[in-house]
Amino acid sequence: MTDNSANRVVVLICTPLEAEFVERIASFDPDRVEVRYRADLVPTPHFVADHHGEPGWKRTPEGEAEWRAMAADAEILWDVPEGNDVPVLEQCPNVRWIQTTSAGVGPMIREKGLADTDIIVTTSSGIHATPLAEFVFAALLYNIKIIPQLLAWQQQKSWERYCAGELRGQTLTLVGPGRIGSEVARLAKALGMRVVAVGATPPGQRQPNPDFDVYVDYSGIDEALGQGDCVVLACPLTAQTDGLVGRRQIDAMKPGVALVNIARGAVIDEEAMIEALQTGHIGFAALDVFQVEPLPETSPLWSMPNVLVNPHSASTAWAENERITDIFVANLAHYLKGQYDQMSPILDKQRGY
Amino acid sequence: MTDNSANRVVVLICTPLEAEFVERIASFDPDRVEVRYRADLVPTPHFVADHHGEPGWKRTPEGEAEWRAMAADAEILWDVPEGNDVPVLEQCPNVRWIQTTSAGVGPMIREKGLADTDIIVTTSSGIHATPLAEFVFAALLYNIKIIPQLLAWQQQKSWERYCAGELRGQTLTLVGPGRIGSEVARLAKALGMRVVAVGATPPGQRQPNPDFDVYVDYSGIDEALGQGDCVVLACPLTAQTDGLVGRRQIDAMKPGVALVNIARGAVIDEEAMIEALQTGHIGFAALDVFQVEPLPETSPLWSMPNVLVNPHSASTAWAENERITDIFVANLAHYLKGQYDQMSPILDKQRGY
Repeated sequence: MTDNSANRVVVLICTPLEAEFVERIASFDPDRVEVRYRADLVPTPHFVADHHGEPGWKRTPEGEAEWRAMAADAEILWDVPEGNDVPVLEQCPNVRWIQTTSAGVGPMIREKGLADTDIIVTTSSGIHATPLAEFVFAALLYNIKIIPQLLAWQQQKSWERYCAGELRGQTLTLVGPGRIGSEVARLAKALGMRVVAVGATPPGQRQPNPDFDVYVDYSGIDEALGQGDCVVLACPLTAQTDGLVGRRQIDAMKPGVALVNIARGAVIDEEAMIEALQTGHIGFAALDVFQVEPLPETSPLWSMPNVLVNPHSASTAWAENERITDIFVANLAHYLKGQYDQMSPILDKQRGY
Repeated sequence: MTDNSANRVVVLICTPLEAEFVERIASFDPDRVEVRYRADLVPTPHFVADHHGEPGWKRTPEGEAEWRAMAADAEILWDVPEGNDVPVLEQCPNVRWIQTTSAGVGPMIREKGLADTDIIVTTSSGIHATPLAEFVFAALLYNIKIIPQLLAWQQQKSWERYCAGELRGQTLTLVGPGRIGSEVARLAKALGMRVVAVGATPPGQRQPNPDFDVYVDYSGIDEALGQGDCVVLACPLTAQTDGLVGRRQIDAMKPGVALVNIARGAVIDEEAMIEALQTGHIGFAALDVFQVEPLPETSPLWSMPNVLVNPHSASTAWAENERITDIFVANLAHYLKGQYDQMSPILDKQRGY
């Protein structure tokens, strides 16, 4: 028997994970990897693939002591620990790699004091592309097929024949042409839409995407927004996209535009957006993200008839933890061989995505 | 100047049509074609591309006399005349070609006593494929993304994070693999679904469609229905499809199945469907068509929380009359040259579609 203890790495699972996926990770290379998971020391999930549980959740003092003992020599973290005001690096001074369960983690990693370290951060960027793109078209079709009107007629038992619009032939302006945005564009093309994409990278420097009829960088955003019958915000939150869609950009949009925000609330001027929804300049908005979350009870967005509020859950899907486990296990194989540059998708901690 | 009066054909526009399309037809070959249209002698449309107007609409007696005079020598009809209890062949004894504005006209043509004549009937089959397929996915995404639940939470200003399902990976059973069904299948594949198609033609006798993962004829419908997470009815109403989805076929469906009916109400046993919706065996139904239309106020379907009632309008689209005019003008060119076999799509009056 070989003593591998010197080589052994400790994986600490920091947020809720189903037993079958914990097992899968634990059985990957039991000689070299020790997996630690205590369901009673992480938040209680409220739904499939919930990683956060009750806001403000904390461990008991005894639980906290056990947690700190488990965390002390952890080298790999599945997600960033919840329920602890102690800095991550103080809880886990030996951490070298963090696998997050979300994609847009740039701001959080900075906030946790991890942006200027050598710790590898792999995200789950990509796995949310399918559920988010499906949500985008659920929302756009809900609007174009006047389902709110159908529901009102149905409640009145009123048989009203009508004529609805079609997404086919419309222009979709996509802000943020990453993994999620590319899936939105692919479905838009399948539906016969024209896609105008806007991103951070100058046109000459990015690989062409055949699903983009037009691509411009953020310097051309006003004109691009003006072309969209539908506008989808799907960019990461960075210094450049914070407030990217301000009052002037909203004014530049087509009257009656349908807006979907699956990016972050701070990407758009929420006050200006609310005003435009009140006048009807923005005809419809489906919002998964907000300036402040949970959305305060006092927000007018809750009761606007042309707004669909989604409580920041459009990215979740039943199959989510299975897909993150796929990413994690593939990355673990590279990590154990020291092939750090093969790990993917790696967060550029300075760029923020 | 040549006297073409001997060759001249009269086109009578029998249902509402925008002036620009009447003009387009009239200007196609003014020497040979005389177009007659009187907006005051056809129903008043209630919405874009409405061809029927108020149910029970009638011309005044004076209007009726004028209409009969216009109709007497008409050879070509745009649509079947409305608002007249006089048989079509008595109104228009010289009719040789009818262009309908709907696709599923087989039963109506029989009812009007035209099935056993030599009159050419071209339909607008195909033009409704886009709006209907968009409606199918509006409905399926509305259900899988739990939008009814989101609306309820929004009304309560309740921020509830949740996990929804995905269409990707689900199986869609498609009953009726015609033009509309093929467009449904194409979009289903783009969304990553598996498509099981069921149609009238035996498997060996039809051209393969790469969007169908499985194709069976109606003898295999029970098994095919059992595979579908989603079931879409998109077949024509014929002797074979009348009552095709009975109690046994509903029982064969997956518990919780999402059903969309864009075919005709008589294709499914409505009473058995209502019972299955009440028990939840059918989890959700979006219905564009019903046994009796308009849907009677007494129907329980109006107030079922898992039903979306669409007042037989899913096929309409703003661009509808433009597309029918395209078909009509192309057919007119063939007709004038006597190339009747080039006209399309021609109704097989015996088969009924």
